[in-house]
Amino acid sequence: MLKLLALLIAVACVSALDNGLARTPPMGWLSWQRFRCNIDCKNDPKNCISERLYMDMADRMAADGYKEAGYEYVNIDDCWALKERDPKTLQLVPDPVRFPSGMKKLADYVHSKGLKLGTYGDMGIYTCGGYPGSKFTMETDARTFSEWGIDSFKMDGCYSTTADFPTAYPIMEFYLNKTGRPILFSCSWPAYMQTKDINYPLIAEKCNIWRNYDDIADSWDSVKTIIKFYGDNKGNFSAVAGPGNFNDPDMIIVGNRGLSYSEEQAQMALWAMMAAPLFISSDLRSISNESRDLLLHKGVIAINQDKLGIMGQRVFAVSNIQVWTRPVLPAGSYALAILNENDGGSGTTVKFYLSNLAISSKSSFKLTEIFQGKDMGVFNSTTEFAIDVDVSSVFFGKLTPVS
Amino acid sequence: MLKLLALLIAVACVSALDNGLARTPPMGWLSWQRFRCNIDCKNDPKNCISERLYMDMADRMAADGYKEAGYEYVNIDDCWALKERDPKTLQLVPDPVRFPSGMKKLADYVHSKGLKLGTYGDMGIYTCGGYPGSKFTMETDARTFSEWGIDSFKMDGCYSTTADFPTAYPIMEFYLNKTGRPILFSCSWPAYMQTKDINYPLIAEKCNIWRNYDDIADSWDSVKTIIKFYGDNKGNFSAVAGPGNFNDPDMIIVGNRGLSYSEEQAQMALWAMMAAPLFISSDLRSISNESRDLLLHKGVIAINQDKLGIMGQRVFAVSNIQVWTRPVLPAGSYALAILNENDGGSGTTVKFYLSNLAISSKSSFKLTEIFQGKDMGVFNSTTEFAIDVDVSSVFFGKLTPVS
Repeated sequence: MLKLLALLIAVACVSALDNGLARTPPMGWLSWQRFRCNIDCKNDPKNCISERLYMDMADRMAADGYKEAGYEYVNIDDCWALKERDPKTLQLVPDPVRFPSGMKKLADYVHSKGLKLGTYGDMGIYTCGGYPGSKFTMETDARTFSEWGIDSFKMDGCYSTTADFPTAYPIMEFYLNKTGRPILFSCSWPAYMQTKDINYPLIAEKCNIWRNYDDIADSWDSVKTIIKFYGDNKGNFSAVAGPGNFNDPDMIIVGNRGLSYSEEQAQMALWAMMAAPLFISSDLRSISNESRDLLLHKGVIAINQDKLGIMGQRVFAVSNIQVWTRPVLPAGSYALAILNENDGGSGTTVKFYLSNLAISSKSSFKLTEIFQGKDMGVFNSTTEFAIDVDVSSVFFGKLTPVS
Repeated sequence: MLKLLALLIAVACVSALDNGLARTPPMGWLSWQRFRCNIDCKNDPKNCISERLYMDMADRMAADGYKEAGYEYVNIDDCWALKERDPKTLQLVPDPVRFPSGMKKLADYVHSKGLKLGTYGDMGIYTCGGYPGSKFTMETDARTFSEWGIDSFKMDGCYSTTADFPTAYPIMEFYLNKTGRPILFSCSWPAYMQTKDINYPLIAEKCNIWRNYDDIADSWDSVKTIIKFYGDNKGNFSAVAGPGNFNDPDMIIVGNRGLSYSEEQAQMALWAMMAAPLFISSDLRSISNESRDLLLHKGVIAINQDKLGIMGQRVFAVSNIQVWTRPVLPAGSYALAILNENDGGSGTTVKFYLSNLAISSKSSFKLTEIFQGKDMGVFNSTTEFAIDVDVSSVFFGKLTPVS
């Protein structure tokens, strides 16, 4: 009996990283896609990687509705540090020209807005941009982040070898936990191993979120390629998603230049289906009202943040049309996304039955379109759905059982 | 001397098709990209190829500012006819279910709005959609179009052989001219011969406009591919463009689902640089105000419609940045477009001198940004330009000599 109890405890303990964070997919802002490694503050002071950029974004998140909607992390990406560690302490040093107040002051500022500050590093010798990595200094770096008041750490995998990942990422997780400060741990672990056998249960045990695939770019092609990867779900990584632990298809590019509005809706809908972290990477100082309203859409965020934390899956794909479902609350409900990736004509009428969605329930369901909040009627197992979906667009709805 | 005169006249006569039409690039609307070969009027009455569709678009063009801006052609594309010709007259017959009033009535309606009606056929046995082609009935078809009051004819090249083109297109042009009705002649001739030696002077002699390349799709990828083809300018087809005769990079997709707003601006700017026909293929009944205002933008249309009719050219291309110039009026002026095709980061500062633009003038130039009408200052041969261009975006300006 004791043995069984110990086993049960062990199973519970290894089932997932449990630092209390990311009970639903984390939401926030991340600089990489829009601002990259722009360190030219002399000629481009507004867009360079500097404390000003993150303070500006914190201001906008607090003032323009993002915080209320659930976006809380302000995340630094690569290129924030000096190229050399402090020779006396071996600590990372933020570039004093671009971060003159220092990281602790920046964290204080972000916290004063009711938000959290994330930072970036790498498990190799260097970061992808050539700044110091954490390979031999994990304990120091975790302690430094904790002392600064950092709330999230993304550890990239450049200048390393994937063979080290199953050892190195857990060790960093150990040191982050050891600080006593809850620090969300974002791992790039599987992103560097796309074609290999990947130990997803171990990743989920050690990371709150993890990038599975390539970086997003500011284009519809990039979004479609990512959606395909997560729809293919090779290695069944969707199975390890749940409260505390989520697959991360990378940043939200809503508000940039590469997506039409209907494509922006499609990204938001599919990221909600995937229970994906929502890290916006666009310029919140100049975003259009239309894109901002989409980022703040309560119905979309409600699906994304559904407390079951189940990752949706692609249930069928035919002729550039694909259908995803995701079980959500209240019990027995589903989110439904129909994506039309065609690039000509005026759209497609997609017809199907509940059974095509792998929904075998005998219930009837009320279908509500999410963007407009439109009631689409009641469906049961014998009703044929017929839903118009324009090209480069998504239908996004919720099926709720009718008692 | 008489011989020389005759030669001069002959040269003048063969230099270009001279039916008095298309002195500047024609503007209008064309159904294909958005509405394709949708003949399902039972289930999709609003979007099917039918007289209703063309009457709806004529209504919008007349009422919503398009006509005033210069858009005048309402152009039918494939799939309007019955699959069989009239057995008694061998004339083409519009589908009586979808065009119950007949073509003459539709032309009357379009003309009553102050607009012109275009139609579509093919020089082969069938059209691309499998409807009757004009191969053996060119004289009859030209006469029929004239009797109906048709103002423009696009002759496609499916179900044919390119070896026939240099004979067949000129014959159709002969019969169109013979009707006495000015009918704009749009040829698909070079589009089917992209990789072969193409007799562009002959094409320009026989056609008002001609498609050089593949059909456009509703995507940024498609737009970029087309811009590359016209920038490469293989065979120097830009040289034959001029009043009465223009290369046609295909429809304007502004108002559809595949381009962001900055990409829509880029299409409009580059089509203006190319002195390209502007045939909108989106749904004018539901277009956003933003896209409509762009289609109606006076500054953009002024460049497109510049009376010199010179086709612009790509003058340099580096790292996904390309620069185009086009000589325009007043004499010595240039339109300037800088396209940023990158898909990440917050844009590029493009720096260059007038000499990089192949402008050797000793003049100083005033530079005016066209979309916002913004004065950018005065430049001469020693001034370095530094212009910020966001990703998936264009800078579009005009250089006017300062006396």
